[in-house]
Amino acid sequence: MRTIVTIAREVGSGGRELGRLLADALGYRYYDREILTEIAQQTSLAEDYVQRVVERRPQPAFSLSAVQVATYLDASAAMPAQSVYKAQREAILSLAEGGSCVVIGRCADYILRGLNPLRVFLHADIESRVRRCLERQTPGPDAVDAKTMRQLIQKMDRERAKYYDFYTGLRWGDKANYDVCVNTTDADLGAIAELLAETARRL
Amino acid sequence: MRTIVTIAREVGSGGRELGRLLADALGYRYYDREILTEIAQQTSLAEDYVQRVVERRPQPAFSLSAVQVATYLDASAAMPAQSVYKAQREAILSLAEGGSCVVIGRCADYILRGLNPLRVFLHADIESRVRRCLERQTPGPDAVDAKTMRQLIQKMDRERAKYYDFYTGLRWGDKANYDVCVNTTDADLGAIAELLAETARRL
Repeated sequence: MRTIVTIAREVGSGGRELGRLLADALGYRYYDREILTEIAQQTSLAEDYVQRVVERRPQPAFSLSAVQVATYLDASAAMPAQSVYKAQREAILSLAEGGSCVVIGRCADYILRGLNPLRVFLHADIESRVRRCLERQTPGPDAVDAKTMRQLIQKMDRERAKYYDFYTGLRWGDKANYDVCVNTTDADLGAIAELLAETARRL
Repeated sequence: MRTIVTIAREVGSGGRELGRLLADALGYRYYDREILTEIAQQTSLAEDYVQRVVERRPQPAFSLSAVQVATYLDASAAMPAQSVYKAQREAILSLAEGGSCVVIGRCADYILRGLNPLRVFLHADIESRVRRCLERQTPGPDAVDAKTMRQLIQKMDRERAKYYDFYTGLRWGDKANYDVCVNTTDADLGAIAELLAETARRL
């Protein structure tokens, strides 16, 4: 019996960390950069190139500088995003058909809807997201302050929403598109991962 | 250790059934009509009167006829809703301080925010809500068809949203106001109740 969990999330709500914890708890495969590798293999596009286009924002956000963020966001506009989306879609379908897995972002809830995934959306209030991103950014001259981080988060969320809405015809973050929406504000991600694992086991 | 679960929900998403299952699973008190009784005792308002004002829609929706729905919605407009809200608020606070409980609707998530409740919102697609309400309505000459039921559900949801938004200054159904939003479309309410019970036990 194959079980698929998709996790969509606001920037800084802990999606990647929770996704990894969940995949570990369930013994499922975890897809994130792996998807990009698969795409690169299928399309002969360089992984770094694919990554920038597919993500449309840096990943993980908090480890990149503001300058890098700006560069990526600008660069993505000029690239053939639709053909990358198509390749990514094929890769996600192929990987998901291969066995139980947790897939982070990338419209996976929509792309995999025929496989009846558990569709999770994570969100949190902006203050806690800024806090989480600030705590995890790489210290150094490129580190940003709270005000800049807040602006970056909001900009990346807008990009994420635009990407999702464009490819799915649905509204990113609209609870109707997900089975469960979890508020991670001040929450223990480990505890949430355990509960979602229990949910997935019962499917 | 006192745990409070508040359940807000779209009409027909199974909130009362799930709330009862959850309270039973946890051994918590369940507040619904009980709240109204408490209000009536405190304010000397007749329970039937209070019920119509507080609910602003019939409860349970699916057991009342379209005629009754229309009567209640019209009647509620002319009643001193704010003083009933205030009495209701006091009752909810007093009941919740008395011990672990599940409270259905009535802005309880907002009213009890100081007690750090687990705030649940239930929703489902309109087709499944119409189906659920049709299945549970009392057969007879007052039973309504799918089209009418759909209109009633949407009207009652609008009333519910207006009531919540007015008293809380927040937006009803906005996932930011809840800890977890669960989509009950084609879902097993018993299984969801078990998972929410597990969540509440870990608080």
